[in-house]
Amino acid sequence: MKDKLNKLKSLLLESHDLTMVASLLNWDQNTYMPTGGAEARGRQRALLSRISQEKSTSPEVGKLIDELVTNIDYFDEDSNEARMILKAKRDYDRAVRIPPPLIAELFAHFSKTFQAWMQAKSSNDFSLVAPMLEKTLQYSLKIAEFFPEMDHPADALIDQFDPGMTVAQIKPLFANLRKELVPLVQNITNREIPNDRFLKLYFSKDDQINFGERVIMDIGYDFSRGRQDLAPHPFTTKFSIDDVRITTRVNENDLIDAFFSTVHEAGHALYEQNISKEFEGTPLDRGTSSGIHESSSRLWENVVGRSYEFWRHYYPILQEYSGDNLATVSLDEFYRAINKVTPSLIRTDADEVTYNLHVLIRFGLELDLLEGKLTISELPKAWNDRYEEYLGVRPDNDTLGVMQDIHWFSGPIGGAFQGYTLGNIFSALIYSSALKASPGIPKEMEKGNFEPLRNWLSDNVYQFGSKYPPIELLKRFSDEPLSIKPYMKYLNNKYKSLYNLK
Amino acid sequence: MKDKLNKLKSLLLESHDLTMVASLLNWDQNTYMPTGGAEARGRQRALLSRISQEKSTSPEVGKLIDELVTNIDYFDEDSNEARMILKAKRDYDRAVRIPPPLIAELFAHFSKTFQAWMQAKSSNDFSLVAPMLEKTLQYSLKIAEFFPEMDHPADALIDQFDPGMTVAQIKPLFANLRKELVPLVQNITNREIPNDRFLKLYFSKDDQINFGERVIMDIGYDFSRGRQDLAPHPFTTKFSIDDVRITTRVNENDLIDAFFSTVHEAGHALYEQNISKEFEGTPLDRGTSSGIHESSSRLWENVVGRSYEFWRHYYPILQEYSGDNLATVSLDEFYRAINKVTPSLIRTDADEVTYNLHVLIRFGLELDLLEGKLTISELPKAWNDRYEEYLGVRPDNDTLGVMQDIHWFSGPIGGAFQGYTLGNIFSALIYSSALKASPGIPKEMEKGNFEPLRNWLSDNVYQFGSKYPPIELLKRFSDEPLSIKPYMKYLNNKYKSLYNLK
Repeated sequence: MKDKLNKLKSLLLESHDLTMVASLLNWDQNTYMPTGGAEARGRQRALLSRISQEKSTSPEVGKLIDELVTNIDYFDEDSNEARMILKAKRDYDRAVRIPPPLIAELFAHFSKTFQAWMQAKSSNDFSLVAPMLEKTLQYSLKIAEFFPEMDHPADALIDQFDPGMTVAQIKPLFANLRKELVPLVQNITNREIPNDRFLKLYFSKDDQINFGERVIMDIGYDFSRGRQDLAPHPFTTKFSIDDVRITTRVNENDLIDAFFSTVHEAGHALYEQNISKEFEGTPLDRGTSSGIHESSSRLWENVVGRSYEFWRHYYPILQEYSGDNLATVSLDEFYRAINKVTPSLIRTDADEVTYNLHVLIRFGLELDLLEGKLTISELPKAWNDRYEEYLGVRPDNDTLGVMQDIHWFSGPIGGAFQGYTLGNIFSALIYSSALKASPGIPKEMEKGNFEPLRNWLSDNVYQFGSKYPPIELLKRFSDEPLSIKPYMKYLNNKYKSLYNLK
Repeated sequence: MKDKLNKLKSLLLESHDLTMVASLLNWDQNTYMPTGGAEARGRQRALLSRISQEKSTSPEVGKLIDELVTNIDYFDEDSNEARMILKAKRDYDRAVRIPPPLIAELFAHFSKTFQAWMQAKSSNDFSLVAPMLEKTLQYSLKIAEFFPEMDHPADALIDQFDPGMTVAQIKPLFANLRKELVPLVQNITNREIPNDRFLKLYFSKDDQINFGERVIMDIGYDFSRGRQDLAPHPFTTKFSIDDVRITTRVNENDLIDAFFSTVHEAGHALYEQNISKEFEGTPLDRGTSSGIHESSSRLWENVVGRSYEFWRHYYPILQEYSGDNLATVSLDEFYRAINKVTPSLIRTDADEVTYNLHVLIRFGLELDLLEGKLTISELPKAWNDRYEEYLGVRPDNDTLGVMQDIHWFSGPIGGAFQGYTLGNIFSALIYSSALKASPGIPKEMEKGNFEPLRNWLSDNVYQFGSKYPPIELLKRFSDEPLSIKPYMKYLNNKYKSLYNLK
């Protein structure tokens, strides 16, 4: 059995490595590639995907997995080996479920839709992309049909990013969250608005980068196994456990935006850099789900990076880096400014509290579309209505409305959004568990020491890669049933004191 | 036949693209990769090479080539199609000649030898690498045995880099060159030594880069289809005809070294950027030989970049870029300084005249080794003796002697060195042909206009990629038999006036 497992590992390593290579091509395309390189790059990326897919779904791989699964009792139930085999089976089953010609068709459609979306968005004309989005909806339902065992069409799509999670589980969670968030946001917006004008002063690119890199180095991002570059949209990418890179973008008239983006991506990168080296190139060598990944990025960006304790240490340092801009601004004023809550139209610019409402709107619309309760032609108005209902703001046009996010225009409708809010919910659960185990974490943070928190995360989350599906992973260190309680407790505590709420 | 050719092209495109992807991995490794990435990178590069090799030597490819060659009369003799088929056959025959297990063995040996060489070089102990070099010599002869139709063992190795060229052709050419160069160098070294101390003044990295990039943009290097980055050793690399990148390294206490390296690499890149777009991803999509490639880089670096006409335009601009360093230095003094001839020990630091003697020494030693006239243990002394004989200098140790170049310690002995001097010889032949067709070239150069020269090169050399083998390519625009005459005429004219020789 060990020989068979080693054979399987060596076959899957090739498929994995081709995926990693494709990621390098993507990284280069977003950082350094001259414009002329685009055509050949598209061709080369498609080739790598195809060969990787061929290798991971070969009959030889299928046969080995079958044999190993049949003899799974040979390995301890909780051993890396058994988990690896089960994860390989899961990946294989998903990969062979959808016929390759349909996959090719999907890619072609998504790529055409993406082009049309760019055009439609810049000319603010939803009708240019609506017919394609209609087709995307049909494709999304078609994908779901290949997973007849799932209760809801969205489940098939969610399962790819958040394994084992379902609409039945997420919908009530999100409904509760909405019930709590809408009044919290209303309460906050009735209070005095913090002054944050000083955050829009000039701060040179180099100084922004240097400050951000100093902080993520303290946090534990390992620059000998990673690097940060500039790209139009920040992302984290990985070529091996020992080469996990992040990107950021800098607005020299925004003091803090690039910083939080850097910390966010470093939160993703910390996860991937700290996966057990044993898992390199195996099916367990990646974060276990979108939600858990997002919990790490949001924990570092928000729970840590927007905390008072954090800035007690870093605010004087930031003041030094940013020249005279913050000379007359107190730590308290700064802390209030970076935690200002404002209902707004754009998800990616949203604050920590309203952000989830943006996600809830999208998740709800996705379910309605997939359940046939809403048509594509009704979608723009439904979008705007929900913004009014959830956030009290209404987009003037579809560029600021239904067309704002890339997701539905470059992939299926369903699967991608829930992870963001699950991440927030998980981040509070994880942080409170870490605090229980290691109550000194905030005090250490005040000294710029993140080791206790990072070590707890490595020991309890990061090292396991995708050995455990998300809910099982959380249960390993928390007895509480999954709920929004820890998250709402965190938000209520923080914002009650920030906004003098009752 | 057209269908079969298209099928062949699409199969070879995949192999080609995997090679291009491997080049990107190499580029990244030399420019931006964090040190931690090395292990996985080695694995991923080996994987891409293997799959590329499998694809290019598949029985399907072999069968298609056979059928197409049998029916080659279907295409015009000089058509791109016919040439493509013949080039594919040539590549295929070479690739299948050496058994894959031996190729793997060779790679393992070269990689081990490279490690040992680094160690041996830094501790100046040739004995640490001598046994491996002994094996390298045996491997080189073994490779040659797979090409029994060749007259000389070196021919098999040379043919890979300079197709169709042989020892029988090169040896007399090089013997003549030596006969002319040794006395020229002696004559020069008897004259007054030009002052070049001002070239060692501080010149900031950014200004050096900016000046160099301005010049290569003028020359015609297309930055929308390429870019320059820093790397420990300058090189040119290609991911498609529309993405050809160069690297350079900067010494802030050398005014001009990085500049000439940039121009040299841009000369390579111009060739690859200007190959006919029709050839993208086909067997014709690369420069036709090492010698022709070097002719382009050396033409731009030396014939153009170290010419008086060139600096009449650029010297005032360089003076602006370099602050006060050159304020009191005249154009004539500068011109003499950048063309200073000094016999020295290190090939890569050598001037235009002595450079070839470094190459001739290596080429001669290679032949003696392959012919059994010299043993590896005798090699260090033979190296030093020839330096004394050819250049009048003698290395103090083997680090400055036999161990200075990477070539013999990372590949076979034979095949790689002749291209450098062939490049010089060809560059003069090509430039004189260009002048015949377009006598206004030097006058335009004085105005910073390189279009006439670049267009002539594109029309007569670059666009063809490897459609024509080197000698056939040269014959298309020059009736003269291949000789060193144009090159010696160029050197004699230039250096007679520079050094007031008779």
